[in-house]
Amino acid sequence: MSAVPPSSSGGRFIAFEGGEGAGKSTQALLLAEALRARGLTVVVTREPGGTPGAEAIRALLLHPPGDTGWTAQSEALLFAAARADHVAHMIRPALARGDWVICDRFVDSSRAYQGGAGGLGDEAVTALHAFGSDGLRPDRVILLEGDEAALAGRLAARGEAADAIEGRSAAYHRAVAAAFHALAEADPEGFARIEAVGAPEDVHARILAALSDLLP
Amino acid sequence: MSAVPPSSSGGRFIAFEGGEGAGKSTQALLLAEALRARGLTVVVTREPGGTPGAEAIRALLLHPPGDTGWTAQSEALLFAAARADHVAHMIRPALARGDWVICDRFVDSSRAYQGGAGGLGDEAVTALHAFGSDGLRPDRVILLEGDEAALAGRLAARGEAADAIEGRSAAYHRAVAAAFHALAEADPEGFARIEAVGAPEDVHARILAALSDLLP
Repeated sequence: MSAVPPSSSGGRFIAFEGGEGAGKSTQALLLAEALRARGLTVVVTREPGGTPGAEAIRALLLHPPGDTGWTAQSEALLFAAARADHVAHMIRPALARGDWVICDRFVDSSRAYQGGAGGLGDEAVTALHAFGSDGLRPDRVILLEGDEAALAGRLAARGEAADAIEGRSAAYHRAVAAAFHALAEADPEGFARIEAVGAPEDVHARILAALSDLLP
Repeated sequence: MSAVPPSSSGGRFIAFEGGEGAGKSTQALLLAEALRARGLTVVVTREPGGTPGAEAIRALLLHPPGDTGWTAQSEALLFAAARADHVAHMIRPALARGDWVICDRFVDSSRAYQGGAGGLGDEAVTALHAFGSDGLRPDRVILLEGDEAALAGRLAARGEAADAIEGRSAAYHRAVAAAFHALAEADPEGFARIEAVGAPEDVHARILAALSDLLP
């Protein structure tokens, strides 16, 4: 994967990663608030999605047409297509303006879900990202790691699985968590592993501390 | 690209290729009729599309949501995703049953449009096909080559360009034709170059002759 250097104009790219129910969306919003309070311009976005094209692909991914479901390969190609659109039409322009970009999931979700738990391998998934998005990396990945029992409780509280990916087996989701863990272990500077346990404000404080070297 | 041997159970995979207005759909139907008259079971399909998932991707490709259009990379990834679904859920099962499959466009369209005219290069496009569809090749590609003036007339007779790809410049469509020509020159056994000029029945007779070694 070709690493792309961060924007030189002051914007930073922060991705939140982790399993379902880890609190990524909540923490992304709390971080955006804190950054705005420091006078920064912040774009909060998510994957798959974030642009009209990528949101349309998201709908296909979460609710596959017909009754066959997507093959693992089609799924990985669709995620890469959505990400390429999102990077070209939202993330790179925002960073070029000097904005901060906070993204709920990015390529490491594809590496953990399709590459790791889905069995496609990391090389294939990173090759698709190199092709589609020139291998763009976040300046920091916030990996939210919770205790699995609490996460399962939060998922259950939401009721039935909302889509084709949330509805996969517990073993699949354990494999996802293990894959995220391995990615973070392999890149300790790129990832901040955050204990996503306790009150949201406590988790938020840990995240701010883990970003202190990037903050103005 | 890993070549995959043709089905051993009697089915054959024939792809029609060429620019817009070359008569691919008409000739695909005439060929299907002729094969059925010989007692063969024939599946006629098209790309992008052919399955519910791939048809949904086709709609996104031809009518991009929002106002940015797809990047060349997103477009190539979407074509590969649609093809992977089509191959897994329609083409391979049909060949495994021993059916003949006639497909209006296949991977060589991606190679000519996105790889050649679109500037992504043949290596990238064939790598996506290797990943998505294990590099499946047709048993024979029928490349319809017409004189450009006649093709332009047929396109004009249809009125305005119907979608995001037909509407591209004449230079783009000339580059597509040149790319198809180069692919056929490089693989004279895999491609049959057919002069798509004159009455449809005459073109059909040339196609049957070019497939005589495959026919039972």
